[in-house]
Amino acid sequence: MGSETGIIVYHLSPDCTLSEVEEGKIYTAYVQGFANFGVFVQLNERVKGLIHKSNLRGKHSERDPVLVKVLGIRSNGNIDLEEVNPSVYHTEVVVKRSAPVLFSDLSRFIGRTVQIEGVVAQIKQTSGPTIFTVADGSGIGNAAAFLEAGVRAYPEVQLGNIITIIGEVMTRNSQLQVEVSSLAVLTGDEENRVRAAFEQIIESRAEPQDIPFLIRSEALEKLRPVMRKVAKLIRRAIFEAQPIVIRHHADADGICAAVAIELAVSALIREGGGDFDAEYFMVKRSPSKAPFYEIEDITRDLDFALKDNTRYGQKLPLILLMDNGSTLEDEPSMRFAQVYQIPVLVVDHHHPDHEIDQYLLAHVNPYHVGGDFGITSGMLGTEIARMINPAIDHQIRHFPAVSAVGDRSEAPERKWYLALVSEQYSEDDCKNIALALDYEQFWLRFNDGREIVKHILNVTRESEVHSSLAHLLVEQANAMIEEQMAALMPHVESRILSNGVHLFLFDVELFAHKFTFPPPGKTSGEVHDRLCQINTGKPIVSIGVGPDFAVLRSRGVLMNIPRMVRELHDEIMGGGISGGGHLVVGSIKFVEGMRSTVIEGLIKKISEAPVEMRNP
Amino acid sequence: MGSETGIIVYHLSPDCTLSEVEEGKIYTAYVQGFANFGVFVQLNERVKGLIHKSNLRGKHSERDPVLVKVLGIRSNGNIDLEEVNPSVYHTEVVVKRSAPVLFSDLSRFIGRTVQIEGVVAQIKQTSGPTIFTVADGSGIGNAAAFLEAGVRAYPEVQLGNIITIIGEVMTRNSQLQVEVSSLAVLTGDEENRVRAAFEQIIESRAEPQDIPFLIRSEALEKLRPVMRKVAKLIRRAIFEAQPIVIRHHADADGICAAVAIELAVSALIREGGGDFDAEYFMVKRSPSKAPFYEIEDITRDLDFALKDNTRYGQKLPLILLMDNGSTLEDEPSMRFAQVYQIPVLVVDHHHPDHEIDQYLLAHVNPYHVGGDFGITSGMLGTEIARMINPAIDHQIRHFPAVSAVGDRSEAPERKWYLALVSEQYSEDDCKNIALALDYEQFWLRFNDGREIVKHILNVTRESEVHSSLAHLLVEQANAMIEEQMAALMPHVESRILSNGVHLFLFDVELFAHKFTFPPPGKTSGEVHDRLCQINTGKPIVSIGVGPDFAVLRSRGVLMNIPRMVRELHDEIMGGGISGGGHLVVGSIKFVEGMRSTVIEGLIKKISEAPVEMRNP
Amino acid sequence: MGSETGIIVYHLSPDCTLSEVEEGKIYTAYVQGFANFGVFVQLNERVKGLIHKSNLRGKHSERDPVLVKVLGIRSNGNIDLEEVNPSVYHTEVVVKRSAPVLFSDLSRFIGRTVQIEGVVAQIKQTSGPTIFTVADGSGIGNAAAFLEAGVRAYPEVQLGNIITIIGEVMTRNSQLQVEVSSLAVLTGDEENRVRAAFEQIIESRAEPQDIPFLIRSEALEKLRPVMRKVAKLIRRAIFEAQPIVIRHHADADGICAAVAIELAVSALIREGGGDFDAEYFMVKRSPSKAPFYEIEDITRDLDFALKDNTRYGQKLPLILLMDNGSTLEDEPSMRFAQVYQIPVLVVDHHHPDHEIDQYLLAHVNPYHVGGDFGITSGMLGTEIARMINPAIDHQIRHFPAVSAVGDRSEAPERKWYLALVSEQYSEDDCKNIALALDYEQFWLRFNDGREIVKHILNVTRESEVHSSLAHLLVEQANAMIEEQMAALMPHVESRILSNGVHLFLFDVELFAHKFTFPPPGKTSGEVHDRLCQINTGKPIVSIGVGPDFAVLRSRGVLMNIPRMVRELHDEIMGGGISGGGHLVVGSIKFVEGMRSTVIEGLIKKISEAPVEMRNP
Repeated sequence: MGSETGIIVYHLSPDCTLSEVEEGKIYTAYVQGFANFGVFVQLNERVKGLIHKSNLRGKHSERDPVLVKVLGIRSNGNIDLEEVNPSVYHTEVVVKRSAPVLFSDLSRFIGRTVQIEGVVAQIKQTSGPTIFTVADGSGIGNAAAFLEAGVRAYPEVQLGNIITIIGEVMTRNSQLQVEVSSLAVLTGDEENRVRAAFEQIIESRAEPQDIPFLIRSEALEKLRPVMRKVAKLIRRAIFEAQPIVIRHHADADGICAAVAIELAVSALIREGGGDFDAEYFMVKRSPSKAPFYEIEDITRDLDFALKDNTRYGQKLPLILLMDNGSTLEDEPSMRFAQVYQIPVLVVDHHHPDHEIDQYLLAHVNPYHVGGDFGITSGMLGTEIARMINPAIDHQIRHFPAVSAVGDRSEAPERKWYLALVSEQYSEDDCKNIALALDYEQFWLRFNDGREIVKHILNVTRESEVHSSLAHLLVEQANAMIEEQMAALMPHVESRILSNGVHLFLFDVELFAHKFTFPPPGKTSGEVHDRLCQINTGKPIVSIGVGPDFAVLRSRGVLMNIPRMVRELHDEIMGGGISGGGHLVVGSIKFVEGMRSTVIEGLIKKISEAPVEMRNP
Repeated sequence: MGSETGIIVYHLSPDCTLSEVEEGKIYTAYVQGFANFGVFVQLNERVKGLIHKSNLRGKHSERDPVLVKVLGIRSNGNIDLEEVNPSVYHTEVVVKRSAPVLFSDLSRFIGRTVQIEGVVAQIKQTSGPTIFTVADGSGIGNAAAFLEAGVRAYPEVQLGNIITIIGEVMTRNSQLQVEVSSLAVLTGDEENRVRAAFEQIIESRAEPQDIPFLIRSEALEKLRPVMRKVAKLIRRAIFEAQPIVIRHHADADGICAAVAIELAVSALIREGGGDFDAEYFMVKRSPSKAPFYEIEDITRDLDFALKDNTRYGQKLPLILLMDNGSTLEDEPSMRFAQVYQIPVLVVDHHHPDHEIDQYLLAHVNPYHVGGDFGITSGMLGTEIARMINPAIDHQIRHFPAVSAVGDRSEAPERKWYLALVSEQYSEDDCKNIALALDYEQFWLRFNDGREIVKHILNVTRESEVHSSLAHLLVEQANAMIEEQMAALMPHVESRILSNGVHLFLFDVELFAHKFTFPPPGKTSGEVHDRLCQINTGKPIVSIGVGPDFAVLRSRGVLMNIPRMVRELHDEIMGGGISGGGHLVVGSIKFVEGMRSTVIEGLIKKISEAPVEMRNP
Repeated sequence: MGSETGIIVYHLSPDCTLSEVEEGKIYTAYVQGFANFGVFVQLNERVKGLIHKSNLRGKHSERDPVLVKVLGIRSNGNIDLEEVNPSVYHTEVVVKRSAPVLFSDLSRFIGRTVQIEGVVAQIKQTSGPTIFTVADGSGIGNAAAFLEAGVRAYPEVQLGNIITIIGEVMTRNSQLQVEVSSLAVLTGDEENRVRAAFEQIIESRAEPQDIPFLIRSEALEKLRPVMRKVAKLIRRAIFEAQPIVIRHHADADGICAAVAIELAVSALIREGGGDFDAEYFMVKRSPSKAPFYEIEDITRDLDFALKDNTRYGQKLPLILLMDNGSTLEDEPSMRFAQVYQIPVLVVDHHHPDHEIDQYLLAHVNPYHVGGDFGITSGMLGTEIARMINPAIDHQIRHFPAVSAVGDRSEAPERKWYLALVSEQYSEDDCKNIALALDYEQFWLRFNDGREIVKHILNVTRESEVHSSLAHLLVEQANAMIEEQMAALMPHVESRILSNGVHLFLFDVELFAHKFTFPPPGKTSGEVHDRLCQINTGKPIVSIGVGPDFAVLRSRGVLMNIPRMVRELHDEIMGGGISGGGHLVVGSIKFVEGMRSTVIEGLIKKISEAPVEMRNP
């Protein structure tokens, strides 16, 4: 055992030559012949040396085993040896140094002793051996080291170390495994050499394929480099056995984006060997509780990740935020990730705050290239998923269209993605799928509902289940929306402001069903849409008011909600005001006792906004 | 491997005779003797054939192995063979066709190669072999097929297929298992034959025993056929390795009904062999969150079931709703079950809506036979549990009495069931157990509390634990009820309506402790009972009002609550009114902002109801 | 099998002598020599006997095996035997009776048959054998008994029984295990002898080491006996394989106390052998939901414990309450524990109600020795943890200082513990850690956050993670407190009461952010602190009011809050009043509709309290 003290005696494996022999080390050997001046021994069939009679310790017969120390290796290849008799020692096998076996080739070496080099990706203590999961770029494999039952072997080894292992390739529980006979952490030049080789292999494996997008889009082309970067980082994580946590906005767009990546990753993990059900624990998709990455979410993610790290020796995860993650509201959580040096990627289409980028390895956002909200996260996620794993293209190519109608994209990409799948899915089909996702996610709360969601998205192509499920969900969702509107619409109050804006106020808690579908945000949106239809051509602002929040939507009014919120925050002392959103769609929070003060202040600001009907 | 391509060579097992030999197939054989015209070979000790010299490929000595193709089988039984030398082939064992072994007999065949036929009940991929769980009517067993580590063997096989397996009976981890040497999905006549045989066995095994009810009851006798049907469907599910989900109303009656079935099913699973702890994962009892089967509940049940189906190849479950499930409020959830063709059974005593029956395989409900609420779910569940598994009779025979007093049954069955167990349990004992169940379930929230509930119900006959636990729970429950009453009773407001009704109004949130026991519904009931005692002989209506709901109870007033709710819904625009219940006990929901309008509307309708003191 | 019927034939193991041979029993033997009067046989190499020719059943050659019954043992040691030929029998091995092997020595007996005696600590049925976990005082080990796959062996054995096992020591999955060849429950004298021996060993092992406290403190010295008792009971639980549930107040003090014990226990379990990851399931730390041990908490703990007991045969746990558990509010939960005879220990520094002690095995509380709140739970917990396991001293010695500043201790021990660690942690460092714990626990909700909490407490000495995490948490916590104050402070209302008290009233729900940090209690505390600073030298009472509760803090006013609450309860009918706390810091609950009545009543009582500025 490498962790024992005592002298190490090396045993040359049959394929070793002189180049694996090192001066000063002790080797096993056997007597091959005799001469006046000493005894010839062989370290293996290929390597022979001489123990000068002055260096002999006893009498020997032919083929007697002896231990020999290498005094010197002459330039002609002759080896001068000294017989030694250490009282305590242990043996390590030396394999031909030029041939570390790659995990991708391991199955050809069953029953043979091989050398493996790679990065430690997991260290799991079992009731028996310690299992080291190692990534060598070509693949991921397990090496089992046994010191004593349930006792950690090679405690000096840590996640991320470069190690070299010599051991026999065995089949354990029908999985290939290297049974460690020696293991060492490489340092210095050796470490650098292996790490560089590993980097080279994994960098090239991680490189996504160069495939065209599903549609021709200038905005997407501008984003291609950063999308490739995200795809590559995710592929690397898979090849390095790093778990992946996908957190996404719990609406149709966020679901489309995240499920696309989840499918790409799962399929790649499945192909990659390793544990047969790794796809179920190496990637975890979770809807976020809020429209941003809350402290409560990262706390949960960290709690689990650190426990898995401690108990199962698993790497800390890569975190991917989708349809989420690009604003200052996400910053507090990102700082938690930063403490643990957990890499974070963001794929989002909300208006980004640039301060967030210091926490991110990569950030895909249409606003970075002059695009906007209309390039949905579902579009971005789907295209990145195809870069990660083109093989799943057919399962996800309709996701962008669903996300586009779900998020009311007005970008030209919307119609192109709709056209792409129009033979299978009409625009109404896509709208229905989006509504079905929203509705089902409401009942799933914060569970991923993996299989149900796949059925809604028709990933599994069980078309009867898909269509009857989508039909049911849409019917129920619409009925509940109608019921909510029947309760709420009679209570909408209206005013005409001095600037001509038609202001509509309604209480989304007092006059709506609570804790059911549609929730307050969606309820407000529905009311606003109906008010817009009734009031064609008029500038409109609608405010859905709750006890300590209000949701604003507008048409034809040049508001700047974030600025209004900032101003109210400064003007109303003790209002506890925060919030924001987009220029003309947003929300504001306040303390309950200041509700009427805040709402009246808000209305005053709205009455000062310039009016410009964009869609009269 | 069945899934490989290449030629198949059959190997006749020793017990095979001519009838297992088929023309055109290739068999292993060995040389037995020589004649001028050719060579005699034996396919096994019993089956002999001739290779005519024109069909020989080489020279042979006695007992030489050869491969032979069957050219023809003559009417006298002589077999004409041709020697063949396929370059690539694999071997399958042929066992005597007339003897598929039943799982119930499997232990007599350890170490022998057998044939098994049955229905695929689960397909579970492990890190090594693929495990097919097969039901053959006589029992359930596992067959392990190995293609490559962690790779799905026989991917063509699906849940519900009829398959035939040949393999050796082994003991793995001390469980019997067939190690598959060949496996085929049967189709056409073969499938029909096996399916019919399976059906016959399982139908007869699933048939419940014909035992008398615990009491003589005309209503129960009328329900016997449908109760038998439910019992039989549950027994079938067990024998076919289909998981069972029991969802029940979270009160004493619902618990009694569901625990009775749970106990019957668990014991049957335990007897049935299969996985040693199958009783813990094949049956799951969960209290419902609402007094009906909510969408959130079915969403959770579906999410888990579909994940188990995908990850562990488990069948979708049978759903059994108890003390729940018979009204239109359950319909939305049932439509989810329908999408996945999940069978649903209902055992309930609430007034049923006939529309629900289209979703059900069977529906036990006293209203279907002219009975009413007084025949409790606990009575029905206990009697069905006895049909499923008479062996547990002694553990559950007091459940009907507990459920009767818990649900305030006024049916004659109440006293008969009480009389049945009066030596062990007085009426007060039963009331105490019912109250203890209600109280404990409150703290258990939506957990089943399996073992605690068994102790409350004295299933395990640890009488000291039972009695001290029940005593503690009753004492605490009563103390908390008293505390609630002390807070609330001084705030009850009363009016005398024009029709003479004494109306009592009280706010169950403003003047009661929230989020604790007793919850608003039970609180209202307690207040009503006390008001009835105080106001002997007067017609009474009590309304417990919450922010967006009200609970109605009455005595001596001929209300029709469902009709009143429907009328208010139509009359009060923007009221968001829904609800219902029984004629004289029910609830109404509304949006919070319309509370006083709704309550006043309700009171007006109550003042128009005819008064008729039933219990003066 | 011990549970089979049929004749038992004993097989003397090689080390047995005459003293293990019993009259009337049958033994295996082999023929050693012949005489006129009969045949000499050997039961093993050491024990020889004679079958008189009249007692022979057949002819024998040398070394023939025979079965013999012991007719008598003469005083000179000669044994008279009779040859027997039972048709059905099974064999049990007899080992030298004088030498039951201890688990701590088991590894020296691999491959040998040994006798083990001890107490049954767990009985777990697997798909194969039944696993009996046995504690013999020296350690804990597993014995596997196989009857039939998945069938419970020796069903007569119950948790807590004293058993004797004979079996071979094997290595199973790299863990030592005794494969049972015979097993018996001891009774009467034998049981008493073993139980006494076990008690003696375990009592002496459980005895904590006698080490000085980290500081010199009279109060602590007075508590030493009961602290030792707690330490010893916890050590016993570990050595007896009894799970430990630690429930603690969810604040910095409670966390310090509980984590100290958790670390001590985990390390001891790790050392103790047994299952390699026992530390993860044998000890469970959970923050309490309320500042006391709620019924909901014990219900959850019981539900899990009883299920583990039934399904995995695990013992019911020992419950340790920390910074919690000493008041009448805990009584209802303790009565649940009492029903199941679950031992409960309390380590708390809240003012104790003496009625609680009837439920406790031990109760450490500074008030019992004339101390007060200033001796924090974290101090007590840390010192007890050191008694349990001195080896973790270096990981926890700063916990008392953190708990002291976290709980605002004013005891002299505060500065002594601060001085102890002042080289590593300044007072501000300790305050920051305490605030970081409070803040992080808020986001963890009721999860233990095991690894995150260790990082905050710098247990793992990863100083970079610790300091950046603590820094982040403190910064975020302070920012959120500032935000809360900015919203709330402008809404504080003040009155000067007739007794000169400056009364401050503020609504912690209407004018504060809800469901976020800081929660209402902490919010009130912050406001009070600021009011005290502003109003130097004045007597102050601050009341943070919620919808159905109020939090009171005061300075310089001689209130008796518990008495005020009791009086209000009696005076205000239908107020639903409860609450209490300390004399001058406390809370009161009421029904929402009576809020203003209760608050005004409260203020009236405050205006009658004597004023005495302690900290002018």
